[in-house]
Amino acid sequence: MFKASIYQDRRKRLQASVPGGLILLPGNNESPMNCADNVYRFRQDSSFLYYFGINQPGVAGVLDADSGEALLFAPEMTVEHVVWMGPQPGLSDLKTLSGTEQALPVEQLEELLKKAKADGRTIHFLPPYRADRSLQLSRWLSTPVEALQPSEALIKAIVAQRSVKSAEEIAEIESALAITRQMHVQATKTAQPGMKEAQLAGMVEGIALATEGALAYPAILTVNGQTLHNHYHGDIMKEGDLVLCDFGAAAPRTDYASDITRTFPVSPNFTDRQKAIYQIVLDAEEQAIQAIQPGVPYKDIHLLAAKIITTGLTQLGLMKGDADAAVEAGAHALFFPHGLGHMMGLDVHDMEDLGEDYIGYTDDLKRSPQFGLKSLRLARALQPGFVLTVEPGIYFIPELIAQWKAEGKHAEFIDYEKVETYLGFGGIRIEDNVLVTEEGHRVLGPPIPKTIEEIEALRKG
Amino acid sequence: MFKASIYQDRRKRLQASVPGGLILLPGNNESPMNCADNVYRFRQDSSFLYYFGINQPGVAGVLDADSGEALLFAPEMTVEHVVWMGPQPGLSDLKTLSGTEQALPVEQLEELLKKAKADGRTIHFLPPYRADRSLQLSRWLSTPVEALQPSEALIKAIVAQRSVKSAEEIAEIESALAITRQMHVQATKTAQPGMKEAQLAGMVEGIALATEGALAYPAILTVNGQTLHNHYHGDIMKEGDLVLCDFGAAAPRTDYASDITRTFPVSPNFTDRQKAIYQIVLDAEEQAIQAIQPGVPYKDIHLLAAKIITTGLTQLGLMKGDADAAVEAGAHALFFPHGLGHMMGLDVHDMEDLGEDYIGYTDDLKRSPQFGLKSLRLARALQPGFVLTVEPGIYFIPELIAQWKAEGKHAEFIDYEKVETYLGFGGIRIEDNVLVTEEGHRVLGPPIPKTIEEIEALRKG
Repeated sequence: MFKASIYQDRRKRLQASVPGGLILLPGNNESPMNCADNVYRFRQDSSFLYYFGINQPGVAGVLDADSGEALLFAPEMTVEHVVWMGPQPGLSDLKTLSGTEQALPVEQLEELLKKAKADGRTIHFLPPYRADRSLQLSRWLSTPVEALQPSEALIKAIVAQRSVKSAEEIAEIESALAITRQMHVQATKTAQPGMKEAQLAGMVEGIALATEGALAYPAILTVNGQTLHNHYHGDIMKEGDLVLCDFGAAAPRTDYASDITRTFPVSPNFTDRQKAIYQIVLDAEEQAIQAIQPGVPYKDIHLLAAKIITTGLTQLGLMKGDADAAVEAGAHALFFPHGLGHMMGLDVHDMEDLGEDYIGYTDDLKRSPQFGLKSLRLARALQPGFVLTVEPGIYFIPELIAQWKAEGKHAEFIDYEKVETYLGFGGIRIEDNVLVTEEGHRVLGPPIPKTIEEIEALRKG
Repeated sequence: MFKASIYQDRRKRLQASVPGGLILLPGNNESPMNCADNVYRFRQDSSFLYYFGINQPGVAGVLDADSGEALLFAPEMTVEHVVWMGPQPGLSDLKTLSGTEQALPVEQLEELLKKAKADGRTIHFLPPYRADRSLQLSRWLSTPVEALQPSEALIKAIVAQRSVKSAEEIAEIESALAITRQMHVQATKTAQPGMKEAQLAGMVEGIALATEGALAYPAILTVNGQTLHNHYHGDIMKEGDLVLCDFGAAAPRTDYASDITRTFPVSPNFTDRQKAIYQIVLDAEEQAIQAIQPGVPYKDIHLLAAKIITTGLTQLGLMKGDADAAVEAGAHALFFPHGLGHMMGLDVHDMEDLGEDYIGYTDDLKRSPQFGLKSLRLARALQPGFVLTVEPGIYFIPELIAQWKAEGKHAEFIDYEKVETYLGFGGIRIEDNVLVTEEGHRVLGPPIPKTIEEIEALRKG
């Protein structure tokens, strides 16, 4: 964790931007796998972590937006706890680490909340994304689960604050990216025809875990890159296949995310067909990155990438007609059906638990209902300090192609006969993590091989 | 999964042993890490898996204990699903795989349950161990969460059935153990002074993941083996340290558990002091295994191990007085504060979600309140087909020693001055997985090095 004054500053800014009342920020509890005591790796709630820094289960924070006081609630440790869990920080340690005014036994939290409620004070809380949190809030606030009302004022204040990353946050993201680089390089070097995807997926997750970190999200490592969120690792890699690798480490202890995609051939070289598609995706990615600067709506950069993809596919004869008109109509989304990127920070999709539209859209900029564009998570104008992903891709999705062809959808922009000769191609995506700076942008972390030449050099060892 | 007839047979037996009504067996849902869409590795509910075999989220089973019918409920797939998640089995595939009479859209489940309730039928369900399940049951059954009443008849019927493992289940456990052997051997070979625990922990988890399996439970791999459930991997391994390794793979796809502990020295050899304690634990483990046969209460075998430990520690001068009296009083629990073992199967602590006392105790055999013995998960008489762990250990827990000494607890059996010369020793545990057979027992899986000579040979490469 960072030094206590950082959390104190963050809390003061939050207290000043919420219009009075109590701000309730509970940390996460353990998450059961197949029984209450067999649990997943603990993942702290990101907003709690941002304001209190304590990365252990069963703790909670309360900020008084009127008095300015910050309270931490945590379980008291007994010798029986120590026997099973080892020595743990006590209340006074936690108070020092987080820089709060008081640290109290967690049993006192419910009483404090009930008293605040009885006194008619507003209790601000965030939307729960875990069911145990919903049940806890329901009990603490004596409110049925379906009637729990998260605080929009709190959501907006936190989104404003967490959207702009500080230097120490950038350093954590870059330390995650250094691990992620290792993972990608190792996967690209190790893959062999006949190997199962899981062999590589286990290896890269092992690398992240060996640092005391973890994966920031479930790894995609697949010869079926055309499936956008493919977490199956049971296929065998064969000569001629492309392997799409979308994974990133979470930084040890602080849990800041990274999110990198690379695509490599199982054979030592890309085929000419693979090269042509790869280069279009790489051009889209690099030109999108070049376009990043404060004030530019990310939706415009998404559309720029869509235009580059459309132009490239038109040159290959897969699309036809006017590129601008095709993008306007959404025809490119047959090949590029997702958004160009999203905010990244403590979460891989930063703050998505607070509501995606609060993060990426504004009161004046609403989400498009168009297929493809509707999946764009970040559309609003960029500001210095934003960290975001840039991740265009081209995919050949048999079921989608069949459906659109049968409907004659965008037939004026798509040559379906030509497209069908690409069935079995899979998919290519290339992704980096970028900081918006005052002057423009900076690609974060050490460079990770991404040109055709660099990838082929790694494949040949 | 196994062939459909196995699930059909299991369901028929369950339907015959529950006194009428509907048996509701929902599968697990995805489990969120830091937002609804960033999820942990999926872990199916074990009882659902046992009776239906379908290892994917969002499905549910209903057995009619009156008509004998079995229904499966699952989400229907759209092209949009396929774009993001890839081709998934449809309802008719799931029906064939599970051998159910019908497979229906999951939306129809709530209606079916509401109708059954209106008709006054009993709806049997198991105790929920995940909060999202509690909320789902509450909605489905129009019952407040706190008023949900799991069915004891269903619990007892399932415990009776799942406690006795079939040949195909044993084969899955042994396939998990083959992976686990690799993990332990690799960890023992690879450890070096100066290495962080996480480097080994990442490596062993990577090995499990590379098989398309996973860990059956969070790995313990620590130089602080005296902390019983220590999941911290941030310490550096030093010459003279002992590394306690308690981990096991879950079998790829079927998720059957394994649970093995070994302890090795960071130096090439054990010290004499380490050897002496190690040999006591090994004797306790091997003699406990020898005592396993049908009809013997596992509590007796736990007490046998406690006696061997007490006798050994008395020979070393750490304990004193009559060994039987010391065990009767519970004095050994300073060094061996946990139970000898537990049932193992689809879960590492098999069926623990159904209620620990249903698994390991009976109406006539109640859990002891004595420190140490109260942590024994399995006490009842063994039956052929039970699979259990045998895992004695000796630990030097500074906080517990200080507390007992201050209280003068069991001072007639413990030489506290001598014990204090062992502070910093850590802990040793040795664990295998054993099948109760008609004739006696069989240690499952390939042998994993455990004698002092075998461990030292591995350490020297």
